Amino acid sequence: MDTAINTWHDLRVNSERMLAAFNELARFGATSDGGVNRPTFSENHLAARQWFQEQIEKSGLEFRTDGAGNHSAFLSCGKDNVPTLLLGSHLDSVPNGGRFDGALGVMAAFEVLRTVKDAKIDLEVNLEAIDFTDEEGTLVGLLGSAALAGHLPPDHLQNPRGGRENLVAGMARAGLSEEGMLSAARPQESVAGYLELHIEQGKRLESANVDVGIVSAIVGIWSYRLSFIGRADHAGTTTMVDRLDASLGASEFALAARDTVINDFRDCVVNVGNMNFSPGAFNIVPAQVDVSLEFRSSDEDKSKRMDSLLLGHAREAAKRFGLELNVESLGKHSPSLMDSHVQSVFASSCDDLGLTHISLTSGAGHDGQSFDGLCPVGMIFVPSKDGASHSPREFTKWEDCLNGANVLLQTVLRLAM
Amino acid sequence: MDTAINTWHDLRVNSERMLAAFNELARFGATSDGGVNRPTFSENHLAARQWFQEQIEKSGLEFRTDGAGNHSAFLSCGKDNVPTLLLGSHLDSVPNGGRFDGALGVMAAFEVLRTVKDAKIDLEVNLEAIDFTDEEGTLVGLLGSAALAGHLPPDHLQNPRGGRENLVAGMARAGLSEEGMLSAARPQESVAGYLELHIEQGKRLESANVDVGIVSAIVGIWSYRLSFIGRADHAGTTTMVDRLDASLGASEFALAARDTVINDFRDCVVNVGNMNFSPGAFNIVPAQVDVSLEFRSSDEDKSKRMDSLLLGHAREAAKRFGLELNVESLGKHSPSLMDSHVQSVFASSCDDLGLTHISLTSGAGHDGQSFDGLCPVGMIFVPSKDGASHSPREFTKWEDCLNGANVLLQTVLRLAM
Repeated sequence: MDTAINTWHDLRVNSERMLAAFNELARFGATSDGGVNRPTFSENHLAARQWFQEQIEKSGLEFRTDGAGNHSAFLSCGKDNVPTLLLGSHLDSVPNGGRFDGALGVMAAFEVLRTVKDAKIDLEVNLEAIDFTDEEGTLVGLLGSAALAGHLPPDHLQNPRGGRENLVAGMARAGLSEEGMLSAARPQESVAGYLELHIEQGKRLESANVDVGIVSAIVGIWSYRLSFIGRADHAGTTTMVDRLDASLGASEFALAARDTVINDFRDCVVNVGNMNFSPGAFNIVPAQVDVSLEFRSSDEDKSKRMDSLLLGHAREAAKRFGLELNVESLGKHSPSLMDSHVQSVFASSCDDLGLTHISLTSGAGHDGQSFDGLCPVGMIFVPSKDGASHSPREFTKWEDCLNGANVLLQTVLRLAM
Repeated sequence: MDTAINTWHDLRVNSERMLAAFNELARFGATSDGGVNRPTFSENHLAARQWFQEQIEKSGLEFRTDGAGNHSAFLSCGKDNVPTLLLGSHLDSVPNGGRFDGALGVMAAFEVLRTVKDAKIDLEVNLEAIDFTDEEGTLVGLLGSAALAGHLPPDHLQNPRGGRENLVAGMARAGLSEEGMLSAARPQESVAGYLELHIEQGKRLESANVDVGIVSAIVGIWSYRLSFIGRADHAGTTTMVDRLDASLGASEFALAARDTVINDFRDCVVNVGNMNFSPGAFNIVPAQVDVSLEFRSSDEDKSKRMDSLLLGHAREAAKRFGLELNVESLGKHSPSLMDSHVQSVFASSCDDLGLTHISLTSGAGHDGQSFDGLCPVGMIFVPSKDGASHSPREFTKWEDCLNGANVLLQTVLRLAM
């Protein structure tokens, strides 16, 4: 007995094999500055998926795909009517992104399955290492995971953020269809849980000099388009006091929003990512400024309080400069809480591996959100140098990547045996 | 002698004839909301010019055109080696502009020539009613008048604000060439002066209930592109205090610029007409915001003081938020002073016609600026309802239009006899 326990406790992923796969993958869509360019269903992305399929087939694992284009390596435990523990991330990238975001998670999941297979460990559930379609939202956002979880809103396919024409053309390139997308849903009882390893995309781990971050929650994101509406006037002939200048409301709002969140919501963030001026000419007083606003919190109550304060600031700023305000809500996504048992198993795995760990929230969205309420979800982060994210500057030391893969392996063993 | 003097003192333009021409002209490019759409060298604009040529030929005046496409009615005084007094404005409009801006000045100038011709008045100079090419700057700005005055900078044709391709295509439609543009320059001794009637494009005359504004100066315009440069970061994973958010510098600058001009430069104006955000996404901290800035004054010293204060505010705003600032000067145009003798003759003409008048500056640019230093320039304004400008809402009562035309006529007679 002791021997058997020591065997699986001592099991580690194959660093060389995983590194070789990681580096090979990074050649698909490689950019001259060390990043990758693999937007969903681009040629680079489809080539990476084709390569992944070949690696799965070479490894002796079963290759699976579904109507949403999700690509998987499948390791059956040989038992009937048992659910599957999903491990995954995504191979698509933002335009000119980095080589770690998503790719590390898929390569680690694949390596975990190969390690478990090679060790011939007897599990109670099947394992599946999955590459989800369009996590980054080039077309829809969390597309593959939402389809698999069975709650892909059909209107997201009709009015996708990336444009309907691009979605239709992309699905055609990938050999997918809308009916297929909607057919990818799996029965709840077939899914045992979902685990993901990802780079942090921030610098809390680096600053604290900690090996692993165990995610407690993925933040909720609320977003708005706020339109400050004044009047277009000749900027030479209209006196300053006669103007209804939309830029003033937008500018005052941007400053007030930051002050409020910095002062009263220290663990939350707000972003004014864009202002679109109409008509936008040097010599015309701005008639309308559309502000792209989003704010994030892992605490729904804080989201509600920020919402109230920020919209109040917008109304005050509009009033002060004689402007109208149009408020368009673009989404109120609740935070996703990670499973507490999975968090504690991650912590035990870290402890056994001699790795330091802290609990933190994820400020970015991830596929795990799609499984909210469907199955237990867990997520770990490894440090990102300088917190770089969605950038060719993304970098995580290989030792940290390997630590993450071994925590994932040990956690799978604890949960699946 | 008394009879002759009374004859020209009592001379008035033909209201019905001028109104008919004004209304016919407004049909070219007419929009459903009562405005006109005649950007330079558009089909609507070229059709209006063709119509103007036909009206000139029908009237028995001489039609002239030049290499810059300026269209004129010419009335020779029959004497050799005498200069020409120019009266004019422009038939082009901003996109979806109003029917008064430019059109009134050309139709009034044309009517003045017809009235003088019909009255067979003996003048010492020739008269020319001219429609200048591209006053509004769809392609270059003050193009025809600058070409005529002989100081069209060749690089304005190489890098026109409306885009080189549009300029080349437009010149081709109008049958013009670059060589022709540069050949339109006239000898200084051939130009006796330039007079223009225009709508005010502001509401000072309407508010003061005054008939005529005599322009003392056309303001100088200084313009910049200010780039606040921070760093693109993930807006979910980067803490508020770790950000270098370019929107904050731009916003603080916009508010400070307005405060400074309202408080310390009461007769000047400033405009932040556009902010261009990069990358401009909801979920990315703005890395760069390019601000379109212009400010205007009829006093060069005030322009210099505003310049110093505004750039100081930009530097402070950048510094406060840890941003870099890039300052690109796009032009420093000095104010154009109107001729003092012409101003006093305008005033005498108003007095004789029983019209009230005030002196004011023009906050907008006009073709008269092109003649700075070349010949005496004078300009009068008539009231604009609600100060509407560059808008289908432009409106000036016909009585005011007629007053302006008669002041122009009487001033021409006083200067040209």
